[in-house]
Amino acid sequence: MPPSAAASPAPESRSALPEPGSAAAAAPATRAAGGPPDLADRFASRTDGMTASEIRALFAVASRPEVVSLAGGMPNLAALPLDTLATEVAELIAQDGQVALQYGSAQGVPLLREQITEVMAAEGIRAHADDVVVTIGSQMALDLVTRIFCDPGDIVLAEGPSYVGALGSFAAYQAQVLHVSMDDDGLVPAALAEALSRLAASGRRAKFLYTVPNFHNPAGVTLAVARRAEILELCRRYDVLVVEDNPYGLLGFDGQTYPALRSMDPDNVIYLGSFSKTFASGLRVGWALAPPSVRDKLVLAAESATLCPPTFNQMMVSRYLAAHDWRGQIKSFREMYRERRDAMLGALGTYLPDGCRWTHPDGGFYVWLTVPAGVDTKAMLPRAVRARVAYASGTGFYADGLGSRQLRLSYCYPTPERITEGVRRLAGVLNAELEVLHTFGSPDRAATRSVGGGARLGPQTPSPDTT
Amino acid sequence: MPPSAAASPAPESRSALPEPGSAAAAAPATRAAGGPPDLADRFASRTDGMTASEIRALFAVASRPEVVSLAGGMPNLAALPLDTLATEVAELIAQDGQVALQYGSAQGVPLLREQITEVMAAEGIRAHADDVVVTIGSQMALDLVTRIFCDPGDIVLAEGPSYVGALGSFAAYQAQVLHVSMDDDGLVPAALAEALSRLAASGRRAKFLYTVPNFHNPAGVTLAVARRAEILELCRRYDVLVVEDNPYGLLGFDGQTYPALRSMDPDNVIYLGSFSKTFASGLRVGWALAPPSVRDKLVLAAESATLCPPTFNQMMVSRYLAAHDWRGQIKSFREMYRERRDAMLGALGTYLPDGCRWTHPDGGFYVWLTVPAGVDTKAMLPRAVRARVAYASGTGFYADGLGSRQLRLSYCYPTPERITEGVRRLAGVLNAELEVLHTFGSPDRAATRSVGGGARLGPQTPSPDTT
Repeated sequence: MPPSAAASPAPESRSALPEPGSAAAAAPATRAAGGPPDLADRFASRTDGMTASEIRALFAVASRPEVVSLAGGMPNLAALPLDTLATEVAELIAQDGQVALQYGSAQGVPLLREQITEVMAAEGIRAHADDVVVTIGSQMALDLVTRIFCDPGDIVLAEGPSYVGALGSFAAYQAQVLHVSMDDDGLVPAALAEALSRLAASGRRAKFLYTVPNFHNPAGVTLAVARRAEILELCRRYDVLVVEDNPYGLLGFDGQTYPALRSMDPDNVIYLGSFSKTFASGLRVGWALAPPSVRDKLVLAAESATLCPPTFNQMMVSRYLAAHDWRGQIKSFREMYRERRDAMLGALGTYLPDGCRWTHPDGGFYVWLTVPAGVDTKAMLPRAVRARVAYASGTGFYADGLGSRQLRLSYCYPTPERITEGVRRLAGVLNAELEVLHTFGSPDRAATRSVGGGARLGPQTPSPDTT
Repeated sequence: MPPSAAASPAPESRSALPEPGSAAAAAPATRAAGGPPDLADRFASRTDGMTASEIRALFAVASRPEVVSLAGGMPNLAALPLDTLATEVAELIAQDGQVALQYGSAQGVPLLREQITEVMAAEGIRAHADDVVVTIGSQMALDLVTRIFCDPGDIVLAEGPSYVGALGSFAAYQAQVLHVSMDDDGLVPAALAEALSRLAASGRRAKFLYTVPNFHNPAGVTLAVARRAEILELCRRYDVLVVEDNPYGLLGFDGQTYPALRSMDPDNVIYLGSFSKTFASGLRVGWALAPPSVRDKLVLAAESATLCPPTFNQMMVSRYLAAHDWRGQIKSFREMYRERRDAMLGALGTYLPDGCRWTHPDGGFYVWLTVPAGVDTKAMLPRAVRARVAYASGTGFYADGLGSRQLRLSYCYPTPERITEGVRRLAGVLNAELEVLHTFGSPDRAATRSVGGGARLGPQTPSPDTT
């Protein structure tokens, strides 16, 4: 799964969403005598839920070079062997150009789908290539899964906090998100049981549980192995499908992997994977692995969405997997990210004021930080950017307005030195906020410093300091 | 716009939609104790409209080498300079790999959007790069336009016949298609006026008119220039947007182009373009050009659909446009297609029995053929494939079950010799059908041979021989 809307580099983000009042947006080259029609009443009702991610809005400023951005989720591609890849791709065009540059099937290139089953085997999944559907990144897989399952008003269960791109897809299909709380061991089974039972009692059933079990975005935690069977059992009991989104699973810093939910209950789990974090995000190659009846609908939905994924990109990934030591490449990525994670955790421990707590990821890209009561991370963001550090404030990761005392820090892209400097600046901003709160009073400063230890990662119900 | 679902090469088509009962589909590698859940009642109601295209179903057999396939819409890439492209793409990776392999913005690479405005200038469009949204082929543009405008039950006006991929997108969003008839000069303004007025009288309004004005797929006709202002005027009067889909506009066999509808009414037209027919379909690079308020919604919708289009592909197209004589390349394509069109029209005139009429495309990929009354093109198809020729039967191009006396013939891909042989075989099949009809009687054999001349291209109301 892609990291978040936040991934866009700034110059393009800016033009991606020009201000409606800006000169560029307001001046089409020509204009018919009739003038522009008023379209306000024309759009489909689902567009009400399509709003610009607050994370995206930040990016224009956050990626000025003087700002240390701990906000984005761009993978660091520095370790990629570009010269070798250049040779490979030239061969692909010269030898197989007539196929690579031509339309393919909506489901994807068969050889790549075979290879994808080998990649998934690393996390215990046994699957047939016929059940794999190649998509434009796993974002498209998520969009298609929502498309085929969710009528407006349908309920989706998702961790709180949850991946911002998933929330975007759910909103686009007018699904209603019910967050289930997490702690340092991931999704809390008791909270899931409670949500499922409450829904059942009201005669409703969620369409699926959406979960990122490994190295969660944004929470940075991993679902404990002991909880996995329990969660699958619960979903089975209440007849709820599981959508397992696993972009980071092979990025465990000690090379550790965890059994995929899909490996434990193939019939009730739709698995989403991606090459964006383990190879190259700019190729936009992801996939869904689904039970046959779901796969058939996904293929039909994919066909009307994009006709087919780019053949060229699929063949490029396929060659890469066949010709390179891709496991060795992932190891290089892991080591690079581990060094950065270490820098971030070190700096957090050194610089952050009392009353903060944060997660300790052992893989992936993100740390989830809870700041002292009274601090509003969204309100603080402009001051942070002025202090030349950027983060993603927590509310973007909730569908229900919670998360104002949380923020996400990414350590994937900047150098360790920049990460340390960024956290130092963030600490300065937090201290200034706390000083203001201290001077003018705050509603609740009871929170104390703690790092993990089973505490819930975010608010479960709005409290005075989170609304 | 991509040609149709029909574009998939056979080996992939086969695995794209494995028979539900096949061994491959029925045997997941493992199975949980609970067995597969029954998902029949879980899917969203929109999946009711998602059915496998009848054209696609044909492709497994139709692309056996002994069959002359006049069914697909795959562009013929033989004229592409693969060695030069190989060098280019290697340079792209070696020099700009860190950008090309990274996430980009949802709207697309700014430089490419600039270049797209230059491509569109060939058809009289003056546009700003800020109003261009790059998509995964123009199929995705069509999907997004439908997504942001169509609630279930909303009405879309479309030519009859219409592009099968558009009908797929409309069905996926549960839009209701109202076909407007065409003749040899394209969409018939009087028919459009009638449809608009009928809707207005019933207090309804179509969300947009979907039209392929140039070298229509599947009809092979071009909207007369004199009709363009009239159609735009009508849509203005009834406050209906126009979605202009123009994948073939630069493939006029005499190098002729027509003024884009967008060039005549920028505020009321959403324009869809594609590099699939003028460069390489396997890169899946298309675009939408839209008024600012629509563009903003498209960007938001695109973000939740795929996060961003592949940066790599966009930069590859951008380099191609910058470094190559792309106009010269399109000229080569045009000449190749003209030779094939000539072969097809020649063979149709030589071999087809009386009672057939067909369109005379002066660009694009397709001829639309109406067979003698009593012949059902869908029923005839298996016999045609047995006679080693394939086509796309007409009903796939209508949302309302019409088209059973029509079929689409593609001349884009096979050699002229194969095209001639394919038409000869088709004539044999048609003669056999007619003989059977003659022997056993037919409901109506009144149709006489005619080639064009203003006759409507398809049935407007079901008649005994078309149902």
